[in-house]
Amino acid sequence: MRCTRLLRQFQTLKPEIKTASFPGPLSQSISKGISQYQEDRSHQFAVDYSKSSGNYIVDADGNTLLDAFAQVCFMGYYCLILTNPASIAIGYNNPSLIELAKSDEFITAAINRPALGNFPPSNWKQILEDGLLKKTPKGLEQLFTAMCGSCANESAYKAAFMAYRDRHHGSGFSEEDLKSCMQNAAPGSPDYCILSFESAFHGRLFGSLSTTRSKAIHKVGVPAFDWPQVAWPSVKYPYEDHIDHNKAAEAKSLDLVKQTIREHKHKKPVAALVVEPIQSEGGDNHASANFFKGLREITKEEGVYMIVDEVQTGFGATGSFWAHDKWQLETPPDMVTFSKKAQAAGFYHNFEMRPSLPYRNFNTWMGDPIRALQAREMISYIDKHGLVKHTEDVGDYIYKSLKTLSENTLIENTRGFKQGTFISFDMPTPAQRDLVVSQMRARGVNIGGCGERAVRLRPMLIFGKAEADILLNTLHSVIHRL
Amino acid sequence: MRCTRLLRQFQTLKPEIKTASFPGPLSQSISKGISQYQEDRSHQFAVDYSKSSGNYIVDADGNTLLDAFAQVCFMGYYCLILTNPASIAIGYNNPSLIELAKSDEFITAAINRPALGNFPPSNWKQILEDGLLKKTPKGLEQLFTAMCGSCANESAYKAAFMAYRDRHHGSGFSEEDLKSCMQNAAPGSPDYCILSFESAFHGRLFGSLSTTRSKAIHKVGVPAFDWPQVAWPSVKYPYEDHIDHNKAAEAKSLDLVKQTIREHKHKKPVAALVVEPIQSEGGDNHASANFFKGLREITKEEGVYMIVDEVQTGFGATGSFWAHDKWQLETPPDMVTFSKKAQAAGFYHNFEMRPSLPYRNFNTWMGDPIRALQAREMISYIDKHGLVKHTEDVGDYIYKSLKTLSENTLIENTRGFKQGTFISFDMPTPAQRDLVVSQMRARGVNIGGCGERAVRLRPMLIFGKAEADILLNTLHSVIHRL
Repeated sequence: MRCTRLLRQFQTLKPEIKTASFPGPLSQSISKGISQYQEDRSHQFAVDYSKSSGNYIVDADGNTLLDAFAQVCFMGYYCLILTNPASIAIGYNNPSLIELAKSDEFITAAINRPALGNFPPSNWKQILEDGLLKKTPKGLEQLFTAMCGSCANESAYKAAFMAYRDRHHGSGFSEEDLKSCMQNAAPGSPDYCILSFESAFHGRLFGSLSTTRSKAIHKVGVPAFDWPQVAWPSVKYPYEDHIDHNKAAEAKSLDLVKQTIREHKHKKPVAALVVEPIQSEGGDNHASANFFKGLREITKEEGVYMIVDEVQTGFGATGSFWAHDKWQLETPPDMVTFSKKAQAAGFYHNFEMRPSLPYRNFNTWMGDPIRALQAREMISYIDKHGLVKHTEDVGDYIYKSLKTLSENTLIENTRGFKQGTFISFDMPTPAQRDLVVSQMRARGVNIGGCGERAVRLRPMLIFGKAEADILLNTLHSVIHRL
Repeated sequence: MRCTRLLRQFQTLKPEIKTASFPGPLSQSISKGISQYQEDRSHQFAVDYSKSSGNYIVDADGNTLLDAFAQVCFMGYYCLILTNPASIAIGYNNPSLIELAKSDEFITAAINRPALGNFPPSNWKQILEDGLLKKTPKGLEQLFTAMCGSCANESAYKAAFMAYRDRHHGSGFSEEDLKSCMQNAAPGSPDYCILSFESAFHGRLFGSLSTTRSKAIHKVGVPAFDWPQVAWPSVKYPYEDHIDHNKAAEAKSLDLVKQTIREHKHKKPVAALVVEPIQSEGGDNHASANFFKGLREITKEEGVYMIVDEVQTGFGATGSFWAHDKWQLETPPDMVTFSKKAQAAGFYHNFEMRPSLPYRNFNTWMGDPIRALQAREMISYIDKHGLVKHTEDVGDYIYKSLKTLSENTLIENTRGFKQGTFISFDMPTPAQRDLVVSQMRARGVNIGGCGERAVRLRPMLIFGKAEADILLNTLHSVIHRL
């Protein structure tokens, strides 16, 4: 945790709840004002971003919270709901990002928003090479840029469908293909599918929502593609304490994956399998590197593309830059999607995922240069301060402390061993979980819930030992009073 | 055209092609560089945005083009492809936008990107009231913000499906609803549909692409929902010269709409109809206010929601702020979607389109405050300079001149009467259209193609009579040499 001093430079705040209730009166009145035009029941509190700094978020009432959730919804009105993804990487009002935002380069990109696929700025290649392409996952030198996580996943699905079609039918189109697709009918609109896992979250637009299986509230009432799912391995936690059981559970899930792909081969072929390295929205569900190696082997054997959804896990939070780096796959996945913390969104891919013709996988903006500039700046900051290693160390420290705390408290199923600060645990009941989250918040520490009864951490990459101690001490005190 | 002087203040350039061929060598080499990582076959030319100004775009080679297309793809390698939407409203490097980008408000919003649905900035309501809400279409006081045009349309579709479901089955969910939706099966995932028009364009993600019917290249190889379409009225142009024929054509299309909705009622109910005020990507296809009045009547009678897709037509280009303002509907549509020129994206809607529960229609970002700030600034600029009226006047001038030009040249089917600068015409063949576009470009005027053989204009709102004369004179000279 060598960079503590450097990281403190813009972090002079400390937890402080000034209002008698939380959210405070001003926050509540702001939400009420917004409710005139927009949904407000999902609001947690209104934020004064100009005063927020580093790991600390300052609300409209002047309350200061240590933010171990970084723009993730941490508590809905509906317990089944929660979440969104940790999307602040290097702290509120990071001076490096302020400087970037003041640069001519940034201003030009912000106010002259280009259609990147048609009229790229002359420095576009340089922006990518100095930024996002520095973190190219092994074997995936191609980069499709997009606007958000759902768009990134859906564009990846489209690439998979196109490549799958071309592999089986050649890259030319028959008259029938061209005619039938205009009727949304086969063969032009083929009856292919994407295979995803139970409790997965991959987004909320129509294609991505068809692969999302985390919570009914996201899906109910919305038409969906009839695409298959397979159960996530029913592993036990702490993962490392149940190795034999977990190995068997993973083998069972792998068998199901293979079986599902084969069963669908002739009626509704699986073009791609999509998987999160750690299922986040679904409750922080883990599996081993061996499980993912198994998935890669099966998909290779069966001619199915593999998409790794790193929208929430990417950009360092798991103690490696990409969570899937740890799997050390012999054959890389075909695509890796990203968004959230990266600010930029899109997917890295191999050359096969490039469509045969321009405009097949296309849209107006094709991403956003200012978000690519921010990604560049953050990557440089992360490397300069060794924040991936830092997050690994801080994560190990938190994990060990939580495991010790779990020995004689209600904390169960601690998870996130060797996964950086991507850490969570269960409380015995949803009500107790809600209580922990709200009492932590009342003490100025913003953590979150996920799944049915899980508490999860999603701190930024600049979260240090000092912040970890505040978090752990507060948790200690809350848990012991339950 | 009273504001000509004001609008000239940052427009000191003129058309100038310096390179022997176009795109020039530097542009070509930049595209080649990018092709290492990304598709480049859709590139038109590489742009030096820092040097572009007002109506003029400067490329990497130092060529200056009058931009009557404003970040729309104007010519693909594949004639069937073309297009994207005019997405620059008030000129390259507009001083007002530069000033905004330098403000603390903008910088704070840019570098501390909030999850708007959970942690709204304390000034969010004010940003909306001073901006996007100033242009609320009549009767649609609610605003859902999103990231792009496709996302805006898909979120609107989701809102329609949810409302339709609740209207017919109540706002509660049965166990079966909650369970079946997790299997992507009815009744939880209902077999509802969105009705769209032939040659429509509504986006490229899975739901929006299922309603897009403009070109096979967008759709082929991608699974689609089995949703219906109805033929666009087969009107003749110039529209105003074929009133009787066009009235009959529109009546026929309206009958088909009613018939299709009724046929689907019991097997796959139509939850919403989506329609562009002017079909853009599909070839600049027009219809009368009466046609749209008819659509509103039918949808009301049949209990189908009506979504007006103003992603390309919105924000003043048609000589009214929203193109559908001109229809003067007795009952407003249920939703109006926008993006492109607005920089911000989303949809205005009535209260019925608000889901019964939070998190039903939700995502991480829920839009982007910096794009909302840009929309605010542009709206203020548009109002201050009377740019909607200005565009109406300039449009009338161009339209009249084109119609005169068509009398003794190859120009056919002039369209856009009383539609601001949303103007287009056909050439007899696709090859002649391509020739017009490329010869215009070689003379420093950037116009575009759409549909099979159409040339279309999509200038910015600051396009004045001086620019119109350059455009018209150049066109005159190109057409007469064909």
